[in-house]
Amino acid sequence: MEVGSGSGDKAGFFTQGRWWLKALPAKFKANMVAMVRNIKKLGQDDPRRVIHSLKVGLALTLVSMFYYCQPLYSNFGVTAMWAIMTVVVVFEFSVGATLGKGLNRGMATLMAGGLGVGAHHLANLSGHIGEPILLGFFVFLQATISTFLRFFPKIKSRYDYGMLIFILTFSLISVSGYRDDEILEFAHKRLSTISIGGSACVIISTVVCPVWAGEDLHNLIALNIEKLGNFLEGFGDEYFKRTGGEESKDDKKFLEGYKSVLNSKNSEESLANFAAWEPGHGRFPFRHPWKLYLKVGTLARECAYRIEALNGCLNADIQASSEVGSIIQEACTNLSIESGKALKELALAIKIMVQPSSADSHIENAKSAAKNIKSLLKSGIWEDIDLLKVIPGVTVASILIDVVTYTEKISESIYELASKAQFKSVEPTLSPKKLHSGQNQSVKSAQIVNCPDVGINVRESTLPSPPSENSSAPKASKQSMGVQI
Amino acid sequence: MEVGSGSGDKAGFFTQGRWWLKALPAKFKANMVAMVRNIKKLGQDDPRRVIHSLKVGLALTLVSMFYYCQPLYSNFGVTAMWAIMTVVVVFEFSVGATLGKGLNRGMATLMAGGLGVGAHHLANLSGHIGEPILLGFFVFLQATISTFLRFFPKIKSRYDYGMLIFILTFSLISVSGYRDDEILEFAHKRLSTISIGGSACVIISTVVCPVWAGEDLHNLIALNIEKLGNFLEGFGDEYFKRTGGEESKDDKKFLEGYKSVLNSKNSEESLANFAAWEPGHGRFPFRHPWKLYLKVGTLARECAYRIEALNGCLNADIQASSEVGSIIQEACTNLSIESGKALKELALAIKIMVQPSSADSHIENAKSAAKNIKSLLKSGIWEDIDLLKVIPGVTVASILIDVVTYTEKISESIYELASKAQFKSVEPTLSPKKLHSGQNQSVKSAQIVNCPDVGINVRESTLPSPPSENSSAPKASKQSMGVQI
Repeated sequence: MEVGSGSGDKAGFFTQGRWWLKALPAKFKANMVAMVRNIKKLGQDDPRRVIHSLKVGLALTLVSMFYYCQPLYSNFGVTAMWAIMTVVVVFEFSVGATLGKGLNRGMATLMAGGLGVGAHHLANLSGHIGEPILLGFFVFLQATISTFLRFFPKIKSRYDYGMLIFILTFSLISVSGYRDDEILEFAHKRLSTISIGGSACVIISTVVCPVWAGEDLHNLIALNIEKLGNFLEGFGDEYFKRTGGEESKDDKKFLEGYKSVLNSKNSEESLANFAAWEPGHGRFPFRHPWKLYLKVGTLARECAYRIEALNGCLNADIQASSEVGSIIQEACTNLSIESGKALKELALAIKIMVQPSSADSHIENAKSAAKNIKSLLKSGIWEDIDLLKVIPGVTVASILIDVVTYTEKISESIYELASKAQFKSVEPTLSPKKLHSGQNQSVKSAQIVNCPDVGINVRESTLPSPPSENSSAPKASKQSMGVQI
Repeated sequence: MEVGSGSGDKAGFFTQGRWWLKALPAKFKANMVAMVRNIKKLGQDDPRRVIHSLKVGLALTLVSMFYYCQPLYSNFGVTAMWAIMTVVVVFEFSVGATLGKGLNRGMATLMAGGLGVGAHHLANLSGHIGEPILLGFFVFLQATISTFLRFFPKIKSRYDYGMLIFILTFSLISVSGYRDDEILEFAHKRLSTISIGGSACVIISTVVCPVWAGEDLHNLIALNIEKLGNFLEGFGDEYFKRTGGEESKDDKKFLEGYKSVLNSKNSEESLANFAAWEPGHGRFPFRHPWKLYLKVGTLARECAYRIEALNGCLNADIQASSEVGSIIQEACTNLSIESGKALKELALAIKIMVQPSSADSHIENAKSAAKNIKSLLKSGIWEDIDLLKVIPGVTVASILIDVVTYTEKISESIYELASKAQFKSVEPTLSPKKLHSGQNQSVKSAQIVNCPDVGINVRESTLPSPPSENSSAPKASKQSMGVQI
């Protein structure tokens, strides 16, 4: 019995093996095709990745010239490998990250080199037996203290790599001194090769198609706010369609975009960190207030939490009944569209770096829609309706009112950013043209997410205090929005 | 005029300078005191930081022995510095991170060394002029491809450091070969010194007070769920106190704890990543399902978004009017407390690694409280009340009902984790004792956040299908909770 089952297993094993071998070429081909497709997609998503890879290859090839050219090699000898190492570890995607790492590495090498030479001389005084003991003690003490300092959040965020190189260089130089008395030369060579490698990185990353972390942060914040705006602009319509039992067949990507905002804290912080190392570039001067972007980003994230709640209502089993829906529909849709537009105007203002005054009228409209909702809820039309049926609609209305508050807060923080960063102010007489050109830009990016054709019905009459002079600008932009979105 | 103001400025400058100099010692002292306090706090917050720093110092001192001992030095010579470098860059806080980096470095060095030697031989065949050109081309090609591969999310998360070392070693070895024909020995020495340094790191980090990333992840997830539970347990009471106009003077830390859950995604992911490198340790076998923790963590975060919305209601200007409050207060408080308790039981179940069955009854209670709220809202008592006054209360009720759904989802995901990770099942006859000992543990951690004395009023009668056999366990635990919380 056992033998039989054993041979059966064996035969099965061989049959399986043969099948597996036969299927191998097809599998291999499918895997290769999938891999090539992945690689292509990765490059297409952000072509700067391909350029970055080529830049690293270029820097490394340039620095390895040290080995090939006799005059350079005779100067540095084997220590030229430090230059190669520096290029590999320092070259990062953005200019800020590369500069930060390069400066960290350079400064740390300089300081640790000096201290290491000092430690070596001190240990040298204590005789042949005392020297290794003292050296060992210094290395232990220095490594322990520096490692502990790396836990400080402030040091960790900006100088972590410098601390690492400090430990490394101090240990190398003080310990090498035990065998080699020419450590001054050793330290000098290390510093100069590292400077050469670091400079190569910084120059190539700054000159050849630079990727600026600051610009990325700027665009990320604008994009995040735009995503929130896209959701809100589409939400009202979508919600009441579902309430009415309709299932729209449009692409629903705009309802998912905000999700990336929920978890963007880390990337925002690291970008702001890198941006602080960067020199002035393009539209951004040297001391651009990068930290204020983090403030705007935090508020956008808090708004995104509310939107997550709205999305929950959208997908809930219990929807507002259609009779409730019909009462608050108009005001809610209005509020949602207006705050969505306000957010998109704010995103646009960041993008083209102008004062965000074009969003003001939308915020006013949203606020008056919120008032409208409140007065609707106060009115007597609800007496005959079962409260349970009202809940979903009332919840949505209440979260929407909360969203208006956050939209206002975001607007305030962007005003602060605009004044600190000296964004251009859009003058009333100039605004229609400027905003029109801006709008086209916004529309372009909005088209990516396939906004449904929402029937924009701006109820100017409900405005408590319509902005008289500025109103021409938003009106002009509204028209162009109405046509194209 | 100009001169006058200039000299006035000068005098002012000197006066200021003198003041500044006078204040210097006091300032310096204050800064030093603040720094010492910071250092002390950093160490007290997590004493493992101090131990880690000492471990790094120890490893580095041990490895630098290569220089001091003649027999060791004569073997490796200057290449012994690779061992020191390896220790500095590979030694990380947790065992998993150290192991991951060490294995990455070792494997990458082995592979790149082999390829580098091959590239050198190939280039050697092409004559004196062709050699540097071919070598340069190889370095460029390899660096470009490897750098691009680092953008793949899967490679980035687990093998990023390996790719870096691959580029480094390949360049070093293939390029060094141009000057030094003994590159096989060079490659061999690099590999062996790196192995020695890496082994020293891995051994010391595993043997001396190891910090396991897996355990940290396990505790983090349990703690996060406990924080959500703490909020919910206190929320109902707090909300209706404020509605009633009372201002409680208790410490409100438990209302802030959940905020850290909102942004814990990155740390969870990196811990899970490190944990995957770790061997079995303590209660966790080698292939512990770390990825399921991420699933639980994601659901906990989604629940935290709802809690953020609840917190918004807590701090809103418009609170539920007291007449509305009095109607839904009992059911809402009940729901909040019961789902809070359920989450705390779930956190405890993770912590002590048992099946989370003790949370079931709380979830049932919370669900029946939710039903209760719904039927209250259905009833006719609302007819005389202004709907606007009802909104805040109804919003809270509706979000709370949503929270119950998430609590259930979290419970399901923990059941999945418990079955995959083979958590012990609490047998009905054993449970009271086991859970009692467990409860004490939970109470200890709950005391840190100073829970207010909530009046627990468990309405067993509303249970749709009271769990007959298991009910003894939760009851026993409820008593102990009632006494101590």
